[in-house]
Amino acid sequence: MCFNLAEGPRCQLCEDQRRDTGLICVVEEPGDVIPIERTHEYRGRYHVLGGALSPIDGVDPEDLKLSELFARVENAPADAPVREVVLATNPTTTGEATALYVADRLRTSAPEVTVTRLASGLPVGADLEYADEVTLGKALAGRRAL
Amino acid sequence: MCFNLAEGPRCQLCEDQRRDTGLICVVEEPGDVIPIERTHEYRGRYHVLGGALSPIDGVDPEDLKLSELFARVENAPADAPVREVVLATNPTTTGEATALYVADRLRTSAPEVTVTRLASGLPVGADLEYADEVTLGKALAGRRAL
Repeated sequence: MCFNLAEGPRCQLCEDQRRDTGLICVVEEPGDVIPIERTHEYRGRYHVLGGALSPIDGVDPEDLKLSELFARVENAPADAPVREVVLATNPTTTGEATALYVADRLRTSAPEVTVTRLASGLPVGADLEYADEVTLGKALAGRRAL
Repeated sequence: MCFNLAEGPRCQLCEDQRRDTGLICVVEEPGDVIPIERTHEYRGRYHVLGGALSPIDGVDPEDLKLSELFARVENAPADAPVREVVLATNPTTTGEATALYVADRLRTSAPEVTVTRLASGLPVGADLEYADEVTLGKALAGRRAL
């Protein structure tokens, strides 16, 4: 269902009944699930796309598990609807493009679902002096009230 | 006034009449002003603290330009009030402590001023697989609607 690596028809995380079915975290590769699990901040399910959109490399929407994601969101049972889709693709050009594509598509097909994106900014322990402009610009633009 | 490096009594950025006087960006060192200027995202003024709070190294609030910052915010002229203080101290232990100290103090002495903090999260171009837990946890907790 989530296209994560699994021994059976469903992965361990999808089998876990204690996990929130209303939250779906979209990642590029199965390997991206592990660092997110390690944070202990996320208690929802996952959806592994198997890559990121990159027309120059010939990776089109059909090559990823995108239609499966949209079907999962749109056809969720009424007693367990999907409330939020967290786009956790990498903060690279292809990852951002994929995130925007998914957000755009879900906005029209499932407007009741909240689509969120991982925060971009300075990593913990970094130094302003050595931060690149784009990251610092995003950190400034995304500043939040304390 | 801002304790940035200057040739005259005021630094070039404070002299610039086109800059927004209602925005003050608090940084640790004069060197931190340069990367923020390079982003072209910020058009306000600065306040250089000259370091970060670190009781273990003997750096107490009196050692930094903190009282000068509070005076600048509280005694701003009525026709040019300070609307927002952007805390751009480094995302390290000492920088975070300094940011919380300033936010806490301003909340009581100047409740009408918005206090914001730079976003913490994944830097642009990073890979989820190699992100540390704390940063990824912050990126998840600080996710925003697209």
